[in-house]
Amino acid sequence: MYTEMFTQMKKQLGQLDKWLGTAEEYAKSKAFDPNVFLALRLAPDQFPLARQVQICCDSAKLGASLLGGKPAESHPDTEQTLEALQERVRSVIAYLDGFSPQDFDDAATRVVSQPRWKGEWMTGADYFVQHVQPNFFFHLTTAYAIFRHNGVSVGKRDFLGPQSKRPPAN
Amino acid sequence: MYTEMFTQMKKQLGQLDKWLGTAEEYAKSKAFDPNVFLALRLAPDQFPLARQVQICCDSAKLGASLLGGKPAESHPDTEQTLEALQERVRSVIAYLDGFSPQDFDDAATRVVSQPRWKGEWMTGADYFVQHVQPNFFFHLTTAYAIFRHNGVSVGKRDFLGPQSKRPPAN
Repeated sequence: MYTEMFTQMKKQLGQLDKWLGTAEEYAKSKAFDPNVFLALRLAPDQFPLARQVQICCDSAKLGASLLGGKPAESHPDTEQTLEALQERVRSVIAYLDGFSPQDFDDAATRVVSQPRWKGEWMTGADYFVQHVQPNFFFHLTTAYAIFRHNGVSVGKRDFLGPQSKRPPAN
Repeated sequence: MYTEMFTQMKKQLGQLDKWLGTAEEYAKSKAFDPNVFLALRLAPDQFPLARQVQICCDSAKLGASLLGGKPAESHPDTEQTLEALQERVRSVIAYLDGFSPQDFDDAATRVVSQPRWKGEWMTGADYFVQHVQPNFFFHLTTAYAIFRHNGVSVGKRDFLGPQSKRPPAN
């Protein structure tokens, strides 16, 4: 199941990559600086678009690293353009491509912790279900909502991406 | 894993219940009609708050019904108040409480379809990972974003809810 879930996250990151491109095109069609988007937010005390994308990426990257046991590459959070955010997203997709199903064989029972948890820990299963997934979707959807609120033409299908529907059986 | 995932959805619905209460209190503190929230949206061609809550509820309800094999109660989408939306959310939590882990034993291999799919179908695993989860979090986070954008005091911890962190081992 972990493999299927991270495969889904890769798909969702691919959709995020497309929204970033759609935002760039929208800005060009309206003749404003596309990178204005990076500082937009839905509330004054909310992280702006750039940070939403960065944390979304980090949720998937750190989740795979801690549950699949591979070191994660470092990202310094210095992106200044939509294209740089796209590169960030693509680098995480490439990182996730490096995992095999076997890497997650003992994911559920791993002991997971982070420095800011001050010694507290979670089982891998709890960490994935209660932390990785909700955080990933929270920041992904917030990025989408910022675009949506600011005129970028994205819809539910752009959020979900292609579905593995199978043809009628008869 | 399905049981853990639906348990998480129950927790998230419990958080949504709380945001609805927080929105009600906020409206009262500012002396405006709390039910104004039901029609708010982030873009003119986006579903308003009430519909986001309804679809979030339906994603969890229908997902559990199709994967766990129990008929789902019907909801006519007629809520006119924040309290009525809270009742809707609570009824879905109660419905999810009726499932045991054994109900999901063959969830991954079930054949899942919906009338509007015109005979097409998905495996239970694909349906859950590609459809139920992304839809649930999409509408949950969009509801949160509408509240956030309109001044309701909710933050990331209110989104995530309590985490099963365990004390240091030493």
